[in-house]
Amino acid sequence: MCEAAAYIIRNGQEELLLEDVDLIEPEGDHLRLVSIFGEQKIVKAAIQSLNLVNHKVILVETK
Amino acid sequence: MCEAAAYIIRNGQEELLLEDVDLIEPEGDHLRLVSIFGEQKIVKAAIQSLNLVNHKVILVETK
Repeated sequence: MCEAAAYIIRNGQEELLLEDVDLIEPEGDHLRLVSIFGEQKIVKAAIQSLNLVNHKVILVETK
Repeated sequence: MCEAAAYIIRNGQEELLLEDVDLIEPEGDHLRLVSIFGEQKIVKAAIQSLNLVNHKVILVETK
């Protein structure tokens, strides 16, 4: 499987936001994350970086 | 393996930018993409969306 864990940087700290993420797409000025289990999160953030071999996506909060 | 193909939207068209991408990270106001074979590309773009099950990353050019 190829899912990744999504972390969000808040106040300089990396926090785990959602595991087993399959899909991240824009929804207005937010991002919608969907896991392989169908769990969804919507956050006001941008995708900062990806490390697919380490299965890690880093988001940053946007204003 | 968990690499993805990176596409960039230019003039409304999706173009293949780099295959087998492992890493995408900010480099100043650009993004640096690195494939599992060590090939690198630097583009002025932002990450728009991810579809990991389909191994696809979509970037958009930024001004």
